[in-house]
Amino acid sequence: MTRLEKQMAFIEEVDKIKLIGRQNYLADGSRKENDAEHSWHLALMTMLLSEYANEEIDVLKTMSMVLIHDLVEIDAGDTYAYDYEAQKSKREREEAAAERIFNILPEDQAKKMRDLWEEFEAEETPEARFAAAVDRVQPAMLNSASGGISWKEHGVTMSHVLRRNGKAALGSQVLWDYEKEHFIMANVEKGLLENDMEDNG
Amino acid sequence: MTRLEKQMAFIEEVDKIKLIGRQNYLADGSRKENDAEHSWHLALMTMLLSEYANEEIDVLKTMSMVLIHDLVEIDAGDTYAYDYEAQKSKREREEAAAERIFNILPEDQAKKMRDLWEEFEAEETPEARFAAAVDRVQPAMLNSASGGISWKEHGVTMSHVLRRNGKAALGSQVLWDYEKEHFIMANVEKGLLENDMEDNG
Repeated sequence: MTRLEKQMAFIEEVDKIKLIGRQNYLADGSRKENDAEHSWHLALMTMLLSEYANEEIDVLKTMSMVLIHDLVEIDAGDTYAYDYEAQKSKREREEAAAERIFNILPEDQAKKMRDLWEEFEAEETPEARFAAAVDRVQPAMLNSASGGISWKEHGVTMSHVLRRNGKAALGSQVLWDYEKEHFIMANVEKGLLENDMEDNG
Repeated sequence: MTRLEKQMAFIEEVDKIKLIGRQNYLADGSRKENDAEHSWHLALMTMLLSEYANEEIDVLKTMSMVLIHDLVEIDAGDTYAYDYEAQKSKREREEAAAERIFNILPEDQAKKMRDLWEEFEAEETPEARFAAAVDRVQPAMLNSASGGISWKEHGVTMSHVLRRNGKAALGSQVLWDYEKEHFIMANVEKGLLENDMEDNG
């Protein structure tokens, strides 16, 4: 296969990400979101909100990262953030998926995409931490806009959401503060997210 | 509203793009694609295929452009490429949409996004021409992968596809040559796209 044939084979293969469903609903609550839509939203948020990163970030690199961060789910499926059993086997299933999917590309791009995905997973660089932040803020925004349907469906409570999403602060303190106030505590007050902590701190 | 409140209001508003349907099907033919999925795919293609641009392009700018290029369809709807009547009123409907939607953002970002959309529409810069190229190659790839269902549904023939998609060559001769060979002529040969021209040239 020529270089361009390999690239096009990859571009066609990853069309499948549009069929990988997530647990959160769209803002209007009409249906659940899929991974392609979610990735588009994160790239747009990165473009518009990079000014709030704790440390300066390379915007192109961060956008590239969020565009490909969920491709492994084509094989490994979406693992719901609050499904603690599935989270245990997640890493192994995703490693195998990365090996197959990224290697459809020519070698140089396969390595680049794999490295980008590993960097995202490790959450150790400013770009990966910012990507992780928008990856937490976006579903919280949609859960909030859609009246917390997804939280209710899965019995997710305030302590779960605070624990899971608090890591957003490592990438952007400003976005985490906004998320906490507008998308989490506002819904606790409305009774849309169960307060299972005695003291909200 | 604070700057961040405006940005978040925009980010929530544009969630609606996930509900704007396109005419082409996903690669597996299971359902039609929506604008968010399409935009994600174009951003990914820009990231992986920028080496084929006729002129050097700013990849971040081009990715930003394709991420927002269809937002006006939230108000104006998707205008099918081969619906020549609807194409006539398209510009006016989309101008009004751009005015409303981008102005949800803080002034500086509203201007930046509006300028980026106008640049995309004008197809006069290397970035806009490359964006237009991937915007033509991607649906042709999906039409080809899904066995030409969308072409058949709309009675689209070879001459329409060649006329509409030939402009891809202005952004990338390499991608246009690939599209023509693999996604158009290969399907004419298979009888999936009607040959309505006496001489294929």
